[in-house]
Amino acid sequence: MRGAFRLGSAAMRFFSDNAAPAHPKVLEAIASANRIDTAYDGDERSRRLDGAFSELFGTEVRAFWVTTGTAANCLALAALCPPYRAILCHKDAHIEVDEAGAPGFFTGGAKLVHVPGDGAKIDPEAIAETCDAIRNDVHQVQPAAISITNATEYGLAYRADEVAAIGELAKQRRLALHMDGARLANALVSTGDALADMTWRAGVQALSFGFVKNGGLNAEALILFDTELADEIAVRRKRAGHLLSKGRYLAVQLLAMLEGDLWLDNARAANAAAQALATAAPDRLVYPVEANEIFLKVSSDEAERLRAAGFDFYDWGPGQIRLVTSWDQQGDALDRLAAAIAAL
Amino acid sequence: MRGAFRLGSAAMRFFSDNAAPAHPKVLEAIASANRIDTAYDGDERSRRLDGAFSELFGTEVRAFWVTTGTAANCLALAALCPPYRAILCHKDAHIEVDEAGAPGFFTGGAKLVHVPGDGAKIDPEAIAETCDAIRNDVHQVQPAAISITNATEYGLAYRADEVAAIGELAKQRRLALHMDGARLANALVSTGDALADMTWRAGVQALSFGFVKNGGLNAEALILFDTELADEIAVRRKRAGHLLSKGRYLAVQLLAMLEGDLWLDNARAANAAAQALATAAPDRLVYPVEANEIFLKVSSDEAERLRAAGFDFYDWGPGQIRLVTSWDQQGDALDRLAAAIAAL
Amino acid sequence: MRGAFRLGSAAMRFFSDNAAPAHPKVLEAIASANRIDTAYDGDERSRRLDGAFSELFGTEVRAFWVTTGTAANCLALAALCPPYRAILCHKDAHIEVDEAGAPGFFTGGAKLVHVPGDGAKIDPEAIAETCDAIRNDVHQVQPAAISITNATEYGLAYRADEVAAIGELAKQRRLALHMDGARLANALVSTGDALADMTWRAGVQALSFGFVKNGGLNAEALILFDTELADEIAVRRKRAGHLLSKGRYLAVQLLAMLEGDLWLDNARAANAAAQALATAAPDRLVYPVEANEIFLKVSSDEAERLRAAGFDFYDWGPGQIRLVTSWDQQGDALDRLAAAIAAL
Amino acid sequence: MRGAFRLGSAAMRFFSDNAAPAHPKVLEAIASANRIDTAYDGDERSRRLDGAFSELFGTEVRAFWVTTGTAANCLALAALCPPYRAILCHKDAHIEVDEAGAPGFFTGGAKLVHVPGDGAKIDPEAIAETCDAIRNDVHQVQPAAISITNATEYGLAYRADEVAAIGELAKQRRLALHMDGARLANALVSTGDALADMTWRAGVQALSFGFVKNGGLNAEALILFDTELADEIAVRRKRAGHLLSKGRYLAVQLLAMLEGDLWLDNARAANAAAQALATAAPDRLVYPVEANEIFLKVSSDEAERLRAAGFDFYDWGPGQIRLVTSWDQQGDALDRLAAAIAAL
Repeated sequence: MRGAFRLGSAAMRFFSDNAAPAHPKVLEAIASANRIDTAYDGDERSRRLDGAFSELFGTEVRAFWVTTGTAANCLALAALCPPYRAILCHKDAHIEVDEAGAPGFFTGGAKLVHVPGDGAKIDPEAIAETCDAIRNDVHQVQPAAISITNATEYGLAYRADEVAAIGELAKQRRLALHMDGARLANALVSTGDALADMTWRAGVQALSFGFVKNGGLNAEALILFDTELADEIAVRRKRAGHLLSKGRYLAVQLLAMLEGDLWLDNARAANAAAQALATAAPDRLVYPVEANEIFLKVSSDEAERLRAAGFDFYDWGPGQIRLVTSWDQQGDALDRLAAAIAAL
Repeated sequence: MRGAFRLGSAAMRFFSDNAAPAHPKVLEAIASANRIDTAYDGDERSRRLDGAFSELFGTEVRAFWVTTGTAANCLALAALCPPYRAILCHKDAHIEVDEAGAPGFFTGGAKLVHVPGDGAKIDPEAIAETCDAIRNDVHQVQPAAISITNATEYGLAYRADEVAAIGELAKQRRLALHMDGARLANALVSTGDALADMTWRAGVQALSFGFVKNGGLNAEALILFDTELADEIAVRRKRAGHLLSKGRYLAVQLLAMLEGDLWLDNARAANAAAQALATAAPDRLVYPVEANEIFLKVSSDEAERLRAAGFDFYDWGPGQIRLVTSWDQQGDALDRLAAAIAAL
Repeated sequence: MRGAFRLGSAAMRFFSDNAAPAHPKVLEAIASANRIDTAYDGDERSRRLDGAFSELFGTEVRAFWVTTGTAANCLALAALCPPYRAILCHKDAHIEVDEAGAPGFFTGGAKLVHVPGDGAKIDPEAIAETCDAIRNDVHQVQPAAISITNATEYGLAYRADEVAAIGELAKQRRLALHMDGARLANALVSTGDALADMTWRAGVQALSFGFVKNGGLNAEALILFDTELADEIAVRRKRAGHLLSKGRYLAVQLLAMLEGDLWLDNARAANAAAQALATAAPDRLVYPVEANEIFLKVSSDEAERLRAAGFDFYDWGPGQIRLVTSWDQQGDALDRLAAAIAAL
Repeated sequence: MRGAFRLGSAAMRFFSDNAAPAHPKVLEAIASANRIDTAYDGDERSRRLDGAFSELFGTEVRAFWVTTGTAANCLALAALCPPYRAILCHKDAHIEVDEAGAPGFFTGGAKLVHVPGDGAKIDPEAIAETCDAIRNDVHQVQPAAISITNATEYGLAYRADEVAAIGELAKQRRLALHMDGARLANALVSTGDALADMTWRAGVQALSFGFVKNGGLNAEALILFDTELADEIAVRRKRAGHLLSKGRYLAVQLLAMLEGDLWLDNARAANAAAQALATAAPDRLVYPVEANEIFLKVSSDEAERLRAAGFDFYDWGPGQIRLVTSWDQQGDALDRLAAAIAAL
C-alpha cells in the first residue's frame, strides 16, 4: 500500500515513472504539429493511428488517443461490461485501488470482483474459482469481463502463454478480456514475447497501451482488437470529455513513440535500470523484478537513511518500499542507489 | 445547425478556432516543463494555479486544469446539480448540442431544460418563465442550476450587468450559476467589462475558462468561485480520467497564457479579424458580431463560390454560413475573404 | 399542464383513474394467493405469466410484473437505448414530464429528444424530420429508440396502422420501438383494433402494459416481444429494487385482469363514461375523446362552479380542465357532471 | 453461500420468511382501503405514516413506503453516499451479495468496501482499520457511510450498545450510518432492547424497516431520522419508479403491522420457532441463534434425508444448511423438524 509522498530536492528520484520528463522526440513531434489542422480527431495525424497500430500489431485494430490510462481502461471496460455485470480483477489492480472508482463511473455502476493471486497476478484457476462462487441468478452480479495488468502493479510480467491461458478461459466462459498495459512495453521487453502473441492472439479484445510512463507527454492509446467496439468507444470518448479539440498534438506523440521503436528502447532502458537495483539487493526483493518496479524489504529506519542520502521513493506498506525506474534514469544516481542499498 | 465539413487544401480557413495552432509561448512553456517533477497535480506549476487565478480574478478561487471544455463544463455541472434535478440552458448551448450527452453522463442523468432566447442568449425573464412552468412536485424534474455560454454559440456577448441580472435571479431561486467561457476572453474584450464583474461578482459559482480556442494547446481551466466545491471537483476529475499523470505540462500552458495577458491579446486579435469580416457584409449578418464568430446569410451558390476561392468554413443551416476567426488569423487571407464577401 | 390538486370531500371525482379502487376480482385474487409459496418470481403464478400473455398476444412473449408504469417504461428503455444515445418522444410524453427524470436514471443518462405533434401524438414524418436534424457525428447524441404512448397523454388513440407506420420507419432507421400502454386497453376499445396488430405486428419491441389505472391494485406488466431482452430485463428489474419478494401477489392481479377479459370490460366502461361527458359538451372539446380522458375549454370561473357542485378534476393550463373517467364510474355522478357541463 | 432451490410439494418449508403468507390483518387492511382516494402518496393513510412512525420511535421521523428492502436500502444509500465515495459493509451484507448491484445503480457507482467480521457482524475496530487502510487522496475512494444489517445475514443480533458504538465511530469520522433492518423486529425481540435505543439514539440516520418477511404483503418502510433527507428521498423514490400510483394499499399494510404491535408479535413467533429448532441441535449450530435464522452443520447426506422427510430449506455452502422460520410457522412441522434434526 502506497504511503504519502513529497518530492525531495534531489534529482535522484525513484518514486514514479510519471515523474520522468517526456522524451525529446515527443516534444519535437508536438512542435512539428503546430500548424493549422482539422479539429478533434479529423486531422491527418490522428487518421494515421489506425494504420500505424495495425501495422505494429500485425492485424487490423482501431486506435484511439486518450490522455490517461484511467480513461483508456474505463472507456474499454464500459464497452465490455454492462452496468449490471462485473469485471474480474485483482484486488490490487490499478482500476480497483488507484482510479477513484472510475470503473463505476464509466460503466454506470458495474462491480469489480476480486480474483486472488500473488503480486497482483491472476491465473485461470483463480478466475474460474471466483466465477464458480457466484450464484447464477439475478440476485448476484454476473461477471462479464476480466481485466489484467501487464506488467502488474507489483512489477510482474505475464508471459504471452499465460495471457493466452486466461484468454482461453475467457472465451469458454464468454467473458471479455481487457489488458491494462500501462507498462506493457516493460513486460514485453522482459519476457521477450511478441506484441501480437501477448495481446490479440492471446484473446485480448481491448488494450490500454501506455506511453506516458514510458517517455510520452500526455498521450496514451486505447487499442481495440474487437474493431466492432470502435463506434461506441468514439462516442463514449467524446461523452467523457476526452475528445480533445486539438487532437493532433496527441496523435503525434504516439507516432513519435512508435517511430524507430522508441517505445521499446525506452522500456529497455527502464528495465535495465531496475535490474541494476535488483542485483544490488537480491535478498530484499519482495517479488521478482520483471519490469521497472522493485519492491524491497526495507525497515523504516533504513528507508530514512536512503532518503537522507537523497533518494526519493514511496513506502509501500510496513517494512517495504517501492522503487520505480524510468526511461531516462541516469547512471550516476542509479549506481549510488544500488550501492546505498547494498550497504544497508 | 452545423453541416458536415472537410478541410480544404487552402490555408485560408475560417471554420474553427480549434484549427489554429498553439501560440509559440505555449509551446515554449511546455518545453520548459520537461524535467523531473512530481506526478499528477502535485508539481510546483500546478500548485501555482490557485494563486495565479486568484490574483487574476481578484478573489480567492480554486483552479483546475483539464483538457477539454466538455470536461470543465460537466465536472462543474455535476458538482452543481444532483442527478435528479435539471440544468437550465439554451437549446443551442454547447452542453446540449455538442457534447454527446456528457452532462447526462457526468451528472448521472440530470436533465437539460431549454430556456428560449435569440442567438443562444437567455435572460432572467425567460429563465423565470421556464422555471414557473415546472410543477413543484416529485413528478417533474426541478431545476438546480443555470448554465450560460459567454460569448454564446452565436457569437453574442453577455455584458457583466446582464450576467449579474441572471445571477440575481439564480440567488433568489436558489439556483447555481455556471458559465461556459470557451470564448470568455472574446466576450470580455468585446464588452470591455472587467473579469471579476463578468464572473464572481455577477454570481457565477463555476467557470469553464477556455484557453484552447484562444491559442492554447490542450489545457483549459475550471475555476471555482465557490471554493467549497474544490474537494469534490478534485475527486470527480480523477474519477473521470481527467487527472493527467504529468499535469505539469497543462499547468504551464495556463500560466503562459496568463503571462503578460497573452490570453487577452489573442482574443483581441481574433475579435478584430471578426470585425473586419463583419464590416465587409453588414447586411448579411444574422447576429451582431460581438466576439470571433460571424454568421452570414449566404446562399449555397454563394457559399460554393467562396469555397472555390479557397476559403474553408461551415454551412450553418439553410442559407447561412459560420465564419470563425482565430488569434493567428493572417491579414492577407482576411482581406481576401472580406473582399470576396463584399463582392458576392 | 397539470395544476395543483386537493381531493374534495365529494365522491364525484374525475381527476384520475389512479383514484379508482381496485376491481373486486383483483382483491379476491390477492386473497387467494395468500399461502406459502416460493419467493420472488419463482412461484407458480408468476411462472404462468409468460404463457398467459403469449396466448393473449398470439405470439411468444416474455411478461414481467412490476409495480409502476414508470418502472415498466424505464426498464424497457434502458434495455433499448444505451446511455450515450437518445429516445425520441413527444414533449408531453409521460416519460418526459411525469417520471421525475426516471429515464435518465435507468438508462444512465440517455437523452429524450422531442418530436412535435398535436395531442402528444407523433407520426413518421415528424420523427424522420427530428432524426434528420441530428448531425451524424460523435458530438451529437444519436437516437436509438422511439417511445409512443397509446392512448396519448391527451386521450388520443393511435390506430394499429398508425403504429405500424412508425414501426416501419423505426425498422428502416434501426430504431427500437417502445409503447407506453398505461391506457392501452382504452385505446384498443376505442379503435377496435386487435391487440396483436397494435403491438408486435406493428413493430413494437417492448410494451408497458397498464393495469393499475384500469382496475388493478399495484401490478403492471412489462411485455417483451423481443424475447432476447428478457435476461437483461430480469437483472435490471432486480437491480432497480423491483423484484418483490412475494411476487405472487402481483402475478395474480395480472391473471385476474386477463381472466374473462376483465381488462377490456373495465376499459369499455371507462371509455363509455368519457363519451357520455364528451357528448355533453362537444364545442368545448380540446381534442377528440378517443379513450377515457376529456380535455375541455372551461374558464376558471366555470371550473369553480363545477367544483362548487362537488366535482373533482385538474386544471390543465389556462382555460382548460382535464376529466378522467374510471372503470367504476357511477352513472349518477356522471349524469350530474354531464348536465352541469351542458349547463355552464 | 446460498445454493439453488426448488420448492418441494411439502408445506413444511423452512427456506425463507419470504415464503410465508401475509398476516390476515394485512389483507383486511388492504381490503379496507379499496375506495376512491387520492393518487400516489397523497392519500390520508400515506399521510398518516410520518405520525405513526414518529410515535413508534419516540422522535420525529419521515416514513416512506416502498415495496422492497432493496429499494429501501439503496434509496437510503444514494442519499447518504455520493457517487464518488464508498459504503462500508460486511462482504456478506445483503446489499453486497443479494441485490444485483443495486447500490451501484442507485448511487451512480459508489463502491462497497468490505469490513471483516464473524457472522456478517462488524464492530468499530474493524471499521476503523478498514478506513485507516484507505489512503486519503483522490486516487482512492473515500468512505462516506457505514451500512449494518440487524439481524445480520447469519441471524446474529446487534445489541443497542453495539450499534451505538458504531454510531459513535461514524460520528467521529463523519460517516453516515444506515441500518438494513429487514429483520429488525427479530433482533429487537431477541435483544430486548428498545427500538429508539437500537436506531436513532445509536446514531442511525436511515433505517430500512422490514415488514414483508415479518407477515407483510408488499410494503416495507424507509425511515429517516435525519429528516432533512426527506425531500431528496421523495424525489429519488419517484425517479426509481417506486412511487406507486395507488400508494394507499401500501400505507395500510404498514399501519396494520403497527396496530397492536402485530410486528412484534410476529417476530416473537418466528424467533420462538427458531429457538425450538436451535434447542434440538445445539452442537450443530454454526452461529448463535439470535433471530429467526438457523445455520446448521449438516452433511449433504443428512440434508438429503431431511428433504426426503419433506422439509424445504437452502444449502448454505459445503456442509451447512440454512433454516428460516416465519411468523406463521406451524407447531407440527416445527416439532417434526426438531425431531428429525435431533435424530440425524
